[in-house]
Amino acid sequence: MSEPILLDRCKYILTLDDKGRILENASILLDEGLIECVGDGCSGRSGIVVDCRGSIAMPALYNAHTHAAMTMLRGLHDDSELHEWLKYMWRVEAKLTPSIVYLASKLAVFEMASTGTAGFIDMYFHPLETARAAEELGIRAKVGPVLMEDSGFEEWRRKLRSIAGSLKGLASPIANVHSLYKVSPETVRAAYDEATRLNSQLHIHVAETRREVYEIHRRYGVFPVELLGRIGALGSNTILVHMGWAASWEYRLAVERKAGIVHCPASNMKLATAGQLPLRELLESGGRVALGTDGAASNNSLDMFREMRIAVFLQRHGYWDTGVSALHALSSAVKHGASLLGVDAGVVEEGRKADLVLLDAGSLYLQPLRKDNLISAIVYAATGRDVTHTIVNGRLIYSRGRNLEEWRREAAGITDRLSDFLYSILG
Amino acid sequence: MSEPILLDRCKYILTLDDKGRILENASILLDEGLIECVGDGCSGRSGIVVDCRGSIAMPALYNAHTHAAMTMLRGLHDDSELHEWLKYMWRVEAKLTPSIVYLASKLAVFEMASTGTAGFIDMYFHPLETARAAEELGIRAKVGPVLMEDSGFEEWRRKLRSIAGSLKGLASPIANVHSLYKVSPETVRAAYDEATRLNSQLHIHVAETRREVYEIHRRYGVFPVELLGRIGALGSNTILVHMGWAASWEYRLAVERKAGIVHCPASNMKLATAGQLPLRELLESGGRVALGTDGAASNNSLDMFREMRIAVFLQRHGYWDTGVSALHALSSAVKHGASLLGVDAGVVEEGRKADLVLLDAGSLYLQPLRKDNLISAIVYAATGRDVTHTIVNGRLIYSRGRNLEEWRREAAGITDRLSDFLYSILG
Repeated sequence: MSEPILLDRCKYILTLDDKGRILENASILLDEGLIECVGDGCSGRSGIVVDCRGSIAMPALYNAHTHAAMTMLRGLHDDSELHEWLKYMWRVEAKLTPSIVYLASKLAVFEMASTGTAGFIDMYFHPLETARAAEELGIRAKVGPVLMEDSGFEEWRRKLRSIAGSLKGLASPIANVHSLYKVSPETVRAAYDEATRLNSQLHIHVAETRREVYEIHRRYGVFPVELLGRIGALGSNTILVHMGWAASWEYRLAVERKAGIVHCPASNMKLATAGQLPLRELLESGGRVALGTDGAASNNSLDMFREMRIAVFLQRHGYWDTGVSALHALSSAVKHGASLLGVDAGVVEEGRKADLVLLDAGSLYLQPLRKDNLISAIVYAATGRDVTHTIVNGRLIYSRGRNLEEWRREAAGITDRLSDFLYSILG
Repeated sequence: MSEPILLDRCKYILTLDDKGRILENASILLDEGLIECVGDGCSGRSGIVVDCRGSIAMPALYNAHTHAAMTMLRGLHDDSELHEWLKYMWRVEAKLTPSIVYLASKLAVFEMASTGTAGFIDMYFHPLETARAAEELGIRAKVGPVLMEDSGFEEWRRKLRSIAGSLKGLASPIANVHSLYKVSPETVRAAYDEATRLNSQLHIHVAETRREVYEIHRRYGVFPVELLGRIGALGSNTILVHMGWAASWEYRLAVERKAGIVHCPASNMKLATAGQLPLRELLESGGRVALGTDGAASNNSLDMFREMRIAVFLQRHGYWDTGVSALHALSSAVKHGASLLGVDAGVVEEGRKADLVLLDAGSLYLQPLRKDNLISAIVYAATGRDVTHTIVNGRLIYSRGRNLEEWRREAAGITDRLSDFLYSILG
């Protein structure tokens, strides 16, 4: 187990508790992976003491949908026409090796850990390599093989079970199914049953594009979320990713069934899907809506602070209304992210898992910072670059002073190897 | 005059020239405020030599519409309802003093200079204070008093002439008129004539909201840009800010008259104006469309790299089309920005003004960086935090290693003073 950590005299603690409390000049003591004490009276023990007089402490963020190893493809023929772009992606993906996935995942994990993300839900090839990269750095990950077509089901299930048996620690298995347009309803149901059996979740792209929605309706006479409901694959262990083009009754159905939803605003915008979900309404009616960056090929960042800002902006643009607030985005990225990752975190209070972030309260880009504009500063002005420390499960996994230079150097070596790999395929 | 600067052996030089050349392992020599040499053969002289083997050199960005001193209001009651929010803004603005505007402008200039912005067009009270803050740091600024209502015209003209007489160096005067709904067409025309007489520009908010557009149409029987055309106030020295709600024929008219247009996507989204302009079509038909952050109260960042990314994303979302590219956004923020600021820059080539930026090519957040994904990395992945050096008019005004800590310290003192001021008003 890790050493106790005292976050000593934080300038601000954004608790995100029910009362919305922001503490000033207070401390947080972490031990055995949990928050043991919050407030004035937490005193140091032997262990790590972090001087937080210049820091904002807050719960860590979760990236609820990504394809970590796609950092490898970041910026690759980015602005070519969509089908052209996909051709490049597929040419590269056809040649993927475990070691390439490992290296690319490592880049992603460097980026996520250093920008305040404590865990992510992943969908990509060679999932154990991504889990390895995450575990080496100490961040949480849900990984699993991706079911792309009906004929692959048996192989997929075999791999998923094998992974479920081998993962331990902060990584856990997830049942990834690409989509309802690539996999039949029967097979999706079988995958959902497998997820349930493993005490895991079904993680599936749903209603990302208008074309998909009409294609599903043409084939099955109902829209995608309805279809999942009809086949019995829509429950609290279903994670619906994108959902920009669902119908109002589908959103209601998803909320009733307590399904998780992941909104990926930057990716949706960059790929011009034009979709958007009613974030505020979903949250206020009890929906569990987390945020995700999607892969770095379609974002091109894994910074969840940037994602929170753009989530609010897109909502306001789409609904001509400023009703969606910074706090809505924070609650998505933090609380609902934690919920989808299955972590009892998202609030700074005793007994919760110690997944926390420290931000630089003196950052030039947040001034003039005060208690009354703290949440606004975090969501609208900050980026992940303001993160100075990331703590996951009570362990200090990133400290800017200690790690950033070292990770940069390691990333440079990875970049060389990934570029050689890409040139060998694309010439 | 400043010392010569050799940007020695840059890993990449994004020239943004007509051929779209990206040079590798090449140097740039700056002297007397100009780019004197670009390529392999530029050798050092006495002067400053910057080792650029780990850098991307590119033309600097311009923030073509902001209210610099509104950094003071960053995050203030941000998510309250719009009219409530405006009430707070106005209560504070009613008590503004020159020294408060100076301090707040200083914060803004720290932010802009350290994120690669070489100049800005400003609209706010006590404009000489903003010019002073800009000049102290060495960045370009266009400033002028703001005409808010007809009755203020004589006073406004007197102030503008006085400012025009006193500004020198990198600051120059601009004729700021709030809008067509606050000022009558006759007075706007008189302001335009004054701008022309001073060899300056008319800088005016136009077609920001749907409500404004219909209000103008109700009053005058035509839409805002048409109205400017009819009264003879629409020319190459007119700068139309926002333009999210203009009609197709108004965009055509603005392009025909060679008017400048400033798109402020983040501000428009945050304030839920729902407007959007056809960026790609305007640029491809010869329009001069620059980008602006608007004030930090409605953004809440002055980082033009973030603005470029969101500009592309908003376009793609609105038009369901990926046709707008990273290069469109770059050309707005760089070339058209330079054009509106009246600077012969925006391209890395001999004889141009030396307004340049260096980015950290080893940034964790741009990997894997290669020549082929360089533009994508700059627009979609980078933020202003990747800037290591900013050069304006041949002078190195920001070097991360030298200035960031010092500016942070100065910003902390400013924050204390601004907060005292706000508390004295708002309690």
